[in-house]
Amino acid sequence: MKLIYVFTRGVRKGRLKMQNSGAVVTPWEVKGEVDYDELIRQFGVEPLDRLMIERLGRHAGGLHVLLRRGMFFSHREFGDWMKSYEEGVRVALYTGRGPSGNTHLGHLIPWIFTKYLQDAFKADLFFQMTDDEKFLFNPELSIEDINKFTEENLLDIIAVGFDPKRTKIFADLSYTKKLYNIAVRVAKHVTFSTARATFGFSESSNIGMVFFPAMQAAPCFLPQYIDGKDTHVLIPCAIDQEPYWRISRDVAPKLGYRKPAGIYSKFIPGLGAGGKMSASMPETAIFLSDTECEAIKKVKNAFTGGQPTIREQKEKGGNPDVCVIYSYLYSLFEESDAEVAETYKSCKSGGKTCGECKESLAKKVAAFLKEHHRRREKAKDCVQDFLLRE
Amino acid sequence: MKLIYVFTRGVRKGRLKMQNSGAVVTPWEVKGEVDYDELIRQFGVEPLDRLMIERLGRHAGGLHVLLRRGMFFSHREFGDWMKSYEEGVRVALYTGRGPSGNTHLGHLIPWIFTKYLQDAFKADLFFQMTDDEKFLFNPELSIEDINKFTEENLLDIIAVGFDPKRTKIFADLSYTKKLYNIAVRVAKHVTFSTARATFGFSESSNIGMVFFPAMQAAPCFLPQYIDGKDTHVLIPCAIDQEPYWRISRDVAPKLGYRKPAGIYSKFIPGLGAGGKMSASMPETAIFLSDTECEAIKKVKNAFTGGQPTIREQKEKGGNPDVCVIYSYLYSLFEESDAEVAETYKSCKSGGKTCGECKESLAKKVAAFLKEHHRRREKAKDCVQDFLLRE
Repeated sequence: MKLIYVFTRGVRKGRLKMQNSGAVVTPWEVKGEVDYDELIRQFGVEPLDRLMIERLGRHAGGLHVLLRRGMFFSHREFGDWMKSYEEGVRVALYTGRGPSGNTHLGHLIPWIFTKYLQDAFKADLFFQMTDDEKFLFNPELSIEDINKFTEENLLDIIAVGFDPKRTKIFADLSYTKKLYNIAVRVAKHVTFSTARATFGFSESSNIGMVFFPAMQAAPCFLPQYIDGKDTHVLIPCAIDQEPYWRISRDVAPKLGYRKPAGIYSKFIPGLGAGGKMSASMPETAIFLSDTECEAIKKVKNAFTGGQPTIREQKEKGGNPDVCVIYSYLYSLFEESDAEVAETYKSCKSGGKTCGECKESLAKKVAAFLKEHHRRREKAKDCVQDFLLRE
Repeated sequence: MKLIYVFTRGVRKGRLKMQNSGAVVTPWEVKGEVDYDELIRQFGVEPLDRLMIERLGRHAGGLHVLLRRGMFFSHREFGDWMKSYEEGVRVALYTGRGPSGNTHLGHLIPWIFTKYLQDAFKADLFFQMTDDEKFLFNPELSIEDINKFTEENLLDIIAVGFDPKRTKIFADLSYTKKLYNIAVRVAKHVTFSTARATFGFSESSNIGMVFFPAMQAAPCFLPQYIDGKDTHVLIPCAIDQEPYWRISRDVAPKLGYRKPAGIYSKFIPGLGAGGKMSASMPETAIFLSDTECEAIKKVKNAFTGGQPTIREQKEKGGNPDVCVIYSYLYSLFEESDAEVAETYKSCKSGGKTCGECKESLAKKVAAFLKEHHRRREKAKDCVQDFLLRE
C-alpha cells in the first residue's frame, strides 16, 4: 500500500513536494521531521479531537494506547462513520500492505489499531495486498520476489489477531476480477491530469503505475460491490496514503457509493536520528522477522535524547522530546500512563539513564516479538480462513 | 478491439494524424480514401506478396476470396509464423471485438478470414472481447450497455463457424485474472510517453484508457502464459489495430515471449460515397442484425460507379473502380473469378446497369444474412462451449 522511494525515479518530484518544516510527505516518500499540525492543514484533514476520541472510547470500551498517546492523530469524516454505525448502517474497515519486503514495526501500527477498531465495531475488514503496485513501482522486483513477500507478510498480518470471521485478505494479482471491475469504473472518472497532479506521474512513469490508483481505490467500494448492501467504509492507515483517498472520495458519489472515511496515524520514527522507520535502513528498523537478540541490539544502539556521559546526564538531565527510545515507550510499548509520566520526569531531571530506558524498551520489544513469532507460527495453519475468494 | 471515434475527445489528434493521401488511419479513426500502399510504408509492415499467398494456399488447400482479391493485403512476419508451424512450434491465433454496438459486415471480415486460418493450421483461437475498453473510451456507455453488446456480439462471433474445440472467447471484465497478470508485466515496460506517442493520449485521457493497451497486448502472450508452452501467435485483424501490436512486439522479448506476427485487412467501404463501414452511419452499414429486407434496401440505395441515366450508362459505361457494389462483389460476395471479371468488363462497356449489379449483390447479401441468422440462433445453444474460463 505504501509507495516506496524508488517511485521517485518515475516522478517529477519538484511538483509535489510539500514543504512541511523541511519534511516531505507523499505516498512514496516520507523524509525529515514532520510537523503534523502543519500536515493536517496541508492535507485538509481534521485533527482527532478529545470529543471524537471519547466517542470512540465509548464504543470500544476503552482507549487504545495509540489513540491516547496521539499516534492516531487525524481523520476525515470519522464522526460521520461512527454516526453510520450508531444508526445501523453497515460499516467496514479497509487497510492494506504493499508486499515489497519484510514487515517492520512501523507497518504494524495501523494494523494493531485496525484490530482495535474491528473489535469495537464488529466490522468486516478488507485487507488489500498491493502486489501489482509493488511489481509496477519497483524496477528491481520480479513477480516471484513479490509473491514471496506477499506470502511472508500475510503471516505477519494474521498474527496481529484479526477476527477470521470478519477479515478478508486479498492480493490484487489473485483476487483480480472484482477489483478490476471496480477499478475501471473509478478510472473512467480520473484523468491523467488529475493523477499527475495527485501523484506526480511523469512521461517516464509506466502505464501500470498510472492506472494503479484506481486499483487502490477499488476496495473502498468492494464491500458494497460484493452484495449491493449500503456500506460506510473507514480506512485506518498512515497519513501518507491520504492522496489515494482523495481520488476515491471524489469518484464515490459518481458511482453511487458513500465516500470512505479515514483515520490517520503518524509515522513511528526509525531508531536513528530523524526520519520514519524504513525498510531501506534495516539497522534502524525493527523487523518482525528479527530475532529477539537482533532487536535488543538495535534498541541498544538507538538514538536517544541523553547526554554524552552518565555524569552529564545526572547533572543536566536528558531530553525525552527528541528521544527515540522514549517515543517508542510513549507511543506503543508503555501502557501505563503513570509509568510513562514518571519516565519523562526522571529523564528530564537526570534520575534515569539512557541505559535504563533502553533496557526497559528492549525487554518490551523482545517480549512483543516473542509473542508475535508465536502467533505467526500459528498463523501458518489458518491462512485459508483469512483469504477472500472471487 | 477497435477504438471508436469518441476517443478523439481525449486525444491530441494533431500529433498522430498521418497524412495518407488525405485519409486518416489510427486505431480509433479511419476516414477518407486510404492509399494502402502508402499505409504499408507508413506503418512499416510488409505487403502480402504472391509467394506468401501461395505458401498459405498450400497449407489451406485453397485461397480464400479475401486473400485472392487482396482484402488481406499486408502482414508482419507472417512467413516466420508459417515457418514455426512448419517446424512443429505450436501456433495460435488471436483476434478480437470491442463490444460497443451491433456487429456489421466490416467487423466480420477479419473473423471470416480467421476461421479460414484456424481450419488451415488447426490452431487455437483466442478471441478477446474488450468490454473494459469500450466502457473506458465511451462516455455515453454504461457497463450494462456494454454487457448487452458483449452478449449479442458473442452470438455473431460464434455464428462465423469457429471450431468450438479450438476457440476460446473471453471478455476482459470476466476473464480478468490472467489478463491483468500479463498486463502488469507488459505495462511495466511501457512508459506513458510511449503510450502517448503511439495512441495520442492527452491530459484529459482517463487513467483506464492509458492502461488499456497493456490489456489488449495481454492475449498475445496468453496461450504461453496458460501452460508455459512455447507458442507463436498470429493476429489477423484490420490494419488500424497495428499500433497495439507494435507495443506487444516491443515488450515480447523482455518478457521472454515470441513477438506476435500479424496479417492485416483493408476496410470494407460503407455503402455511401467514401469512408469505411461504420456503426456510426447505420444507413451505410449492413448490420448482422438487419433483416434481409433492410439489407436489400440498403444495397439498393448504395453509391455506385454508374452514370446518372441508363442511357448514359449504356453509352459511356460505368466505373467499377469507385463502385461500392462492385467492391463488395469483388472483395467477398462473388467467389467466381470469371464472374467478377465479366462484371467489371460489362460495367465498363455499359453492358450491365447498376440495377442489375445491385440485384445480384442484394440476393447474395440476403442469402448471407439468412444463413448468418440461422447460425446465430444455433449459437445460442452452445455459447458455453466457446467461453474461456480462469
